[in-house]
Amino acid sequence: MQPISHPLQFFQAHFDKYLSKYQDFLRIPSVSTDPDHKADLQHACDFLVDQLKSLGADYIEVFPTPMHPIVFAEKRASKPDAPTLLIYGHYDVQPVAPLDEWKSPPFEPTLEGDYLIARGASDMKGQVMAVLSAIDSIAQTNDQPLNLKFLFEGEEEIGSPSLETFIASHRDLLACDMVLNPDAGMVGPDSPTIVYGLRGLVYFEVRIDGPKADLHSGLFGGVVANPAIVLSEIIANLHAPDGSVAIPGFYNQVLPLTPEEKARIAANPIRESDLLAITGAPALYGEAGFTPMERIGARPTLDVNGLYSGFIGEGSKTIIPAYANAKISCRLVPNQDPDQVYDAIRTHIESRVPPTVRLTIVKHSGAPAYLADDAPGLQHLASALSETWGKPVIFKREGGSIPVAITMQNYLGVKSLLTGFGLPDDHIHSPNEHQHLPTWKKGVQALIRFITGFEHES
Amino acid sequence: MQPISHPLQFFQAHFDKYLSKYQDFLRIPSVSTDPDHKADLQHACDFLVDQLKSLGADYIEVFPTPMHPIVFAEKRASKPDAPTLLIYGHYDVQPVAPLDEWKSPPFEPTLEGDYLIARGASDMKGQVMAVLSAIDSIAQTNDQPLNLKFLFEGEEEIGSPSLETFIASHRDLLACDMVLNPDAGMVGPDSPTIVYGLRGLVYFEVRIDGPKADLHSGLFGGVVANPAIVLSEIIANLHAPDGSVAIPGFYNQVLPLTPEEKARIAANPIRESDLLAITGAPALYGEAGFTPMERIGARPTLDVNGLYSGFIGEGSKTIIPAYANAKISCRLVPNQDPDQVYDAIRTHIESRVPPTVRLTIVKHSGAPAYLADDAPGLQHLASALSETWGKPVIFKREGGSIPVAITMQNYLGVKSLLTGFGLPDDHIHSPNEHQHLPTWKKGVQALIRFITGFEHES
Repeated sequence: MQPISHPLQFFQAHFDKYLSKYQDFLRIPSVSTDPDHKADLQHACDFLVDQLKSLGADYIEVFPTPMHPIVFAEKRASKPDAPTLLIYGHYDVQPVAPLDEWKSPPFEPTLEGDYLIARGASDMKGQVMAVLSAIDSIAQTNDQPLNLKFLFEGEEEIGSPSLETFIASHRDLLACDMVLNPDAGMVGPDSPTIVYGLRGLVYFEVRIDGPKADLHSGLFGGVVANPAIVLSEIIANLHAPDGSVAIPGFYNQVLPLTPEEKARIAANPIRESDLLAITGAPALYGEAGFTPMERIGARPTLDVNGLYSGFIGEGSKTIIPAYANAKISCRLVPNQDPDQVYDAIRTHIESRVPPTVRLTIVKHSGAPAYLADDAPGLQHLASALSETWGKPVIFKREGGSIPVAITMQNYLGVKSLLTGFGLPDDHIHSPNEHQHLPTWKKGVQALIRFITGFEHES
Repeated sequence: MQPISHPLQFFQAHFDKYLSKYQDFLRIPSVSTDPDHKADLQHACDFLVDQLKSLGADYIEVFPTPMHPIVFAEKRASKPDAPTLLIYGHYDVQPVAPLDEWKSPPFEPTLEGDYLIARGASDMKGQVMAVLSAIDSIAQTNDQPLNLKFLFEGEEEIGSPSLETFIASHRDLLACDMVLNPDAGMVGPDSPTIVYGLRGLVYFEVRIDGPKADLHSGLFGGVVANPAIVLSEIIANLHAPDGSVAIPGFYNQVLPLTPEEKARIAANPIRESDLLAITGAPALYGEAGFTPMERIGARPTLDVNGLYSGFIGEGSKTIIPAYANAKISCRLVPNQDPDQVYDAIRTHIESRVPPTVRLTIVKHSGAPAYLADDAPGLQHLASALSETWGKPVIFKREGGSIPVAITMQNYLGVKSLLTGFGLPDDHIHSPNEHQHLPTWKKGVQALIRFITGFEHES
């Protein structure tokens, strides 16, 4: 009997108990955006501390922050030279509005066929409970071949305002050889996935000021430039007719896609019809010469995130607005420097502003893209996933950014293993969020295989 | 002692009382666009009824409408064959947002030097109170040589939805020989003005829908069209680089300016430097080949009045908005048919919408332009104005539209005398609206002269 069989069998035998704890976690309405839920965040934090105690953590500390506490824990391997795996998770969840669109109350986990429905079921209490169930199953049956560290925050859904400071000031505590972040999800239930690339971001705001106050369009229409029209003209000039970004220098640092990358992206099972169904858009659109999945994962983009000018209430008001404002952001790919991209945009926009108005342009944030096909532990994780599913792993470059992965790399010098067992149609951030339980079960099995897989190395 | 001196002297002697009543009227927050202010509209209506009673009206009736009531009153001349003057006014005001840009609370009338600051001080409670002060001064001292009728509405700032029906169904009640509408303003404090031409208006809303909900710009940036960008591209295509409107057919019905009209417009004392000072714009802008005053008064224009899409709060949110919305309006000149212009715009916009989004375009309102250099009473009014100011009257074609003047002409067969004592820099529809009090005082004097001027005719 191989040692690896013990934790897998233990998990199988005690599945109902693990599912029940997962449901207990989901009952806590830990909505971090809502100050009224502050006590619930503490409650979720306490719940995690109990779980960590019960799986035999050697050290647990809860660090207060200005908002919601950070939980750190360590469970040491018996061998002193074992490598250290740091596991990241968050215990907060998104708000539930609109409540009337939920088929069952968001904090009363409900089983429907293969699905467990509740806020946080997928993002990411389900993933945190997969990790804890895997480690508990190992703890109950086996010696553990890795030192395990845990870092759970309660502010991910509000942008992790306390996390970077915490990591920067606790480098020794968090020192590790590998980082596992199961917040990245899978492309489909039969496609175990490792995300190895994330796009970066530059976010800025453009404001066009014209008259000193809103003007009556009858009295002044025809003699002053309209800031809403000037802003529209600026925005219209940010893209070329072929869907590419028309800002000189925007693509300067973008590396061409290698044939290997193109093949890796083409292996992703998501099709145009899937994207149409998920988005509800009448047709897809984007840069000519690239497939939709290449455009999402491996090409930089520019989007207007918000637009405001003048009168936006019901009915009509005949004004020339005093100003117009746009929030604009770019997703960046590896090798693009957010500062250089922003400078190119600013220079381009400045050159398009007529003397009839005044421009203000302000940068909100910038982060480079992330490429981690060499994250430590990648091969172990890939083997564990493909053994569990009996399928090759999909390696995916993803469109979004996971800032904590960049923070970890910057302060701890370790690239993250980005995976997870959520699916694209889990309705995260929306009503009726759910987790596909057969996928969750496989996820726990894969995590058991991943961690116990290091036994053969020592 | 000429009889005309009595009311002028009476007004001079009781100026403080009239100013105080004017301030009482301004204290009523009669914002017609806001349902929460419904009781305030009734309050403003009651205030007018009290004023009409106190100046000795023979007949007063308040007509309910689906929104805010219409006040009608009559004060008969002692001579049975006296001509009848119908006076139009509105007691509602524009909203006050943005409130934090007001130097004093908008409904606490504040004297600052020569100015009275409050919402409605100029548009048009000040003008209504000028009329009522003039007639009261006459009533206290003189026989009145005209039958006077009053028509005050409370829905002008929301497009007068009840007025046309009311006028159409009360032609006998409103029958008159002349119409005075003091909602038109002056070109400067030393330039008494009669407006003889008004631009028409067509107002519509364009909405671009893309995805079924806001999307995460990381996960979907690059595969769907961004409604805010598509809307910007549509708006950018509404004008040609020379400042003209680029919609095919837009200028089809526009008549060329005659040399006489060009000369009349050139006689207007407003200079480019005045327009720069009033608007605060860094430079003027408009259709090539026409002077600024020609562009305001005699050329059609197109302006964006409001723009909304996605996230417009503080900070950043990385979404592709589900939709984008623009309020757009055109000022029209004589001979342009609002329906034909709207059709040309709709056809043009429809032709520019890509298949990646959905278009909705809705017309809010439309009114043709107006030309009335032969309105009855014009010479009496011009004499009264020029005697009061000691200057010749400016005859002006104005950029705005006054739909009630067209309605009056259609149903009562009388063109309106369009004047008023508001100034171009009164900040109407904007924060810190004010009335220049020395101009208001002269306005009351001119109205006294205008009405009493008919004595010599009987």
